[in-house]
Amino acid sequence: MAGKAVSAPRGPYKTGVRRREQIVQAALTVFGEQGFAGGSIRTIAERVGVSHATLLQHFGSKEGLLTAVLEEWDRQTVETGLSGVEGLEYFRRLPLVMSAHLANPGLLELFITMAAEASNPAHPAHTFIRHRYDRNLTILAGHLRQAADAGETTSLAPAQIDMEVRIVTAVLDGIGLQWLNDPSTDIVQAVATFMDRTIADWSRH
Amino acid sequence: MAGKAVSAPRGPYKTGVRRREQIVQAALTVFGEQGFAGGSIRTIAERVGVSHATLLQHFGSKEGLLTAVLEEWDRQTVETGLSGVEGLEYFRRLPLVMSAHLANPGLLELFITMAAEASNPAHPAHTFIRHRYDRNLTILAGHLRQAADAGETTSLAPAQIDMEVRIVTAVLDGIGLQWLNDPSTDIVQAVATFMDRTIADWSRH
Repeated sequence: MAGKAVSAPRGPYKTGVRRREQIVQAALTVFGEQGFAGGSIRTIAERVGVSHATLLQHFGSKEGLLTAVLEEWDRQTVETGLSGVEGLEYFRRLPLVMSAHLANPGLLELFITMAAEASNPAHPAHTFIRHRYDRNLTILAGHLRQAADAGETTSLAPAQIDMEVRIVTAVLDGIGLQWLNDPSTDIVQAVATFMDRTIADWSRH
Repeated sequence: MAGKAVSAPRGPYKTGVRRREQIVQAALTVFGEQGFAGGSIRTIAERVGVSHATLLQHFGSKEGLLTAVLEEWDRQTVETGLSGVEGLEYFRRLPLVMSAHLANPGLLELFITMAAEASNPAHPAHTFIRHRYDRNLTILAGHLRQAADAGETTSLAPAQIDMEVRIVTAVLDGIGLQWLNDPSTDIVQAVATFMDRTIADWSRH
């Protein structure tokens, strides 16, 4: 929606939008390589060629930049392997999504660290993380509802669908956290094993 | 093992051990109530009636205290519902373990936040968190191996057992993280739903 509203900006405003995009892309690279602890605003500002102060002006705060980075990460994740995918196929693609995350371990670390810290309602990213959970659960529930309505699965009540998508989300987050601490964790195979079993159970009439 | 070594301490050493235990208990209460962000060393020191400096002397650093807290939490968790439990019954009890965690939300937050931050090898708790994962995976794998050997499940190769216990661990961690951000998450029911399905699949010959 933001993309539509700024589809033909001109002058200083257009420059600002472009600069903001540059900063988000640089931040994606820096955090992707160096993670939450290693990535610094100063490094990002240097890459884009702006001052620390100018960079923060675009986002209000470090948390503002971090949430912009996570939003862009989410957008790219959907583009990577989930765009236009519907019903059960959406769930079958989740191992591929984890596979894409392996290319950017720092972004996975950024999300998990923020999600843990932001559970404190006083944290500046609390509302963002809470909304991100809500949005992702709604998307997953929509696909499972679609699968059930199309007869791809057994009949599922709304409360069951809600529970199922929470479990799927738990596996994706939890296996990511485990992998951050133990890189020998095969997160693609873990998600594939879990999803295959879960889909088989959903489909059992 | 530490308990055995210090079974009959005397004099100043005994006092030191008791004081250390007092501090850990106070820290469990403070972090349990106020979480990682809210719990302060100063509050814990005040409750025990020692100075900030004396408290840190017992643990070397804040991270030293935090790891002692998590070790005690683990010990209490086992005592709560897993002591002496073997084979598949161990996995059937996991929803009860989550239920016990609900009484101490701050400790769950403490663990998840530390696990996310400590994924950085430079973090002082990195080795502790890594070992904690290794230890928990080994315990879970032992119980699943036991279940397989006793014929409670279908035959499971070592690599399958390793994968299965990583998925179980992911669900426990991931649903905890989700619940921290959205307290409406029914973590007991989520773990029960996941474990019932998983055990049914393990048992399917």
